[in-house]
Amino acid sequence: MERIKKFIKMNMDAYLFKGVVIGISGGIDSAVVGKLLVDSMGKDKVYGLILPERDTDSNTIDDAKLVCRFLDIEYEMIDITGILRKLGVYSLKPPAFPFPKIIQKIYSKNIWEKEDNPFIQDLTTQGDEKFLESLAYYRTKPRIRSTVLYFEAEKRNYAVAGCTNKTEYVTGFYTKWGDEVCDIEPIRHLYKTEVFELAKELNIPKKIIDKKPSPDIAPGITDEFAIGMDYAELDRILMKIEGGKDLSLENEENVKKLRKCWNLVNLGKQNNYIYHRYFS
Amino acid sequence: MERIKKFIKMNMDAYLFKGVVIGISGGIDSAVVGKLLVDSMGKDKVYGLILPERDTDSNTIDDAKLVCRFLDIEYEMIDITGILRKLGVYSLKPPAFPFPKIIQKIYSKNIWEKEDNPFIQDLTTQGDEKFLESLAYYRTKPRIRSTVLYFEAEKRNYAVAGCTNKTEYVTGFYTKWGDEVCDIEPIRHLYKTEVFELAKELNIPKKIIDKKPSPDIAPGITDEFAIGMDYAELDRILMKIEGGKDLSLENEENVKKLRKCWNLVNLGKQNNYIYHRYFS
Repeated sequence: MERIKKFIKMNMDAYLFKGVVIGISGGIDSAVVGKLLVDSMGKDKVYGLILPERDTDSNTIDDAKLVCRFLDIEYEMIDITGILRKLGVYSLKPPAFPFPKIIQKIYSKNIWEKEDNPFIQDLTTQGDEKFLESLAYYRTKPRIRSTVLYFEAEKRNYAVAGCTNKTEYVTGFYTKWGDEVCDIEPIRHLYKTEVFELAKELNIPKKIIDKKPSPDIAPGITDEFAIGMDYAELDRILMKIEGGKDLSLENEENVKKLRKCWNLVNLGKQNNYIYHRYFS
Repeated sequence: MERIKKFIKMNMDAYLFKGVVIGISGGIDSAVVGKLLVDSMGKDKVYGLILPERDTDSNTIDDAKLVCRFLDIEYEMIDITGILRKLGVYSLKPPAFPFPKIIQKIYSKNIWEKEDNPFIQDLTTQGDEKFLESLAYYRTKPRIRSTVLYFEAEKRNYAVAGCTNKTEYVTGFYTKWGDEVCDIEPIRHLYKTEVFELAKELNIPKKIIDKKPSPDIAPGITDEFAIGMDYAELDRILMKIEGGKDLSLENEENVKKLRKCWNLVNLGKQNNYIYHRYFS
């Protein structure tokens, strides 16, 4: 933890940033990164942004405010619905609010489960028209969030902090050119289960630690549902793959799936992200 | 040229893209990339987007349409003014249209020249409040353009083509997370002067080849004005730096400036872009 704080301080100074902007989602990752920033730079140099849109759950906004109050930082809420509407994002999907939440959840889960292996299809941008539209629909949201974070940061000569963890990073569970976009990544070397441990050490509010992590892109979709296993199993398998350890005691299907993710993502990264290739 | 076409074809097939989206600016780079895409994949698989905003010159739009007609591709014009307005970009700068163009040009040039070395300040995001606001103002535009390109591409399972050339790439003359954002970069290995040569071979319309390249971010600012030297000199010095050749015959000030850019940008790239650092 001290090593992370030193890393933050050193880089902020080296690159002459006056402070840092962080998007607070109400989830555990941005809460942990926020606390590390506050502890290393002082709360006056950390500016929080809550960026909800039409489909954001009101509980999520409450959680994000709770985190900002816990961090005791200055923050602003900017609704990005208008930007996304101008972009034409919402014309791809009807608004969910006329339907009770339970129906929304079943609807989202059905779309996701209909696909053979949606997570791999997501990584490779394959699938039928409806699925591709869903990808375009949800990926635009983190991209617009990043653009807003940079707009607010650059006016102030502030950095943008990223909240990607190692589990997301090695499986590709983030949006290309979306939430990966930042100036500094304080927890990218930590698996999600390690982020949970750190959260306890940092006294992050229990409500934030206890809630089910979710990418907040569609109602009812939690991280673990989207990936198809819980974080304990996920991280355990990933750590074994990373360390080249024996995997015979793990679920065979899940190992196969994660190996595929691992290879796809690493192949992509070698070539500058998945699909991202330069001529040379 | 054949090598580039093969590169495009190979990667589009390998990554299962059904086609490619390209932002047509009216400049020479996107015209050349567009022609290479059409020649390697067929015009039916290339979709052009013209993305003007409040400050876009109407001549620029005419040039972009000229390029699309020359390429004989399907294209669409999407005005991104509304998106940028919702984002609050325009509240930083008054609209320029009430003023004659010549006044706009003098105004923009004054802001740019007031600074000691605006290009280095741009690379390092330093400068006074007015200058920082200008950076936030213009950098948001290519970022929104990229988001729109991806939105249109992902719906179709198309790739996004980038139009960055080597001169821009090694000097940092592009927007971080903005115009660099793409799936394939067909001309990033070519200096701007080499792009001009290729443009002639590809029979790009003379009007496009002959106009002064401009980043189209503020009236009157051409590339050569912003960088402070012409492309012939710029590329000659960059090639000499790259090849470790004798620089004694070159303008000392310009060599110093470009060495600084080269080092800043390469330092940044080693650390995953300027300021972009990960913990490891």
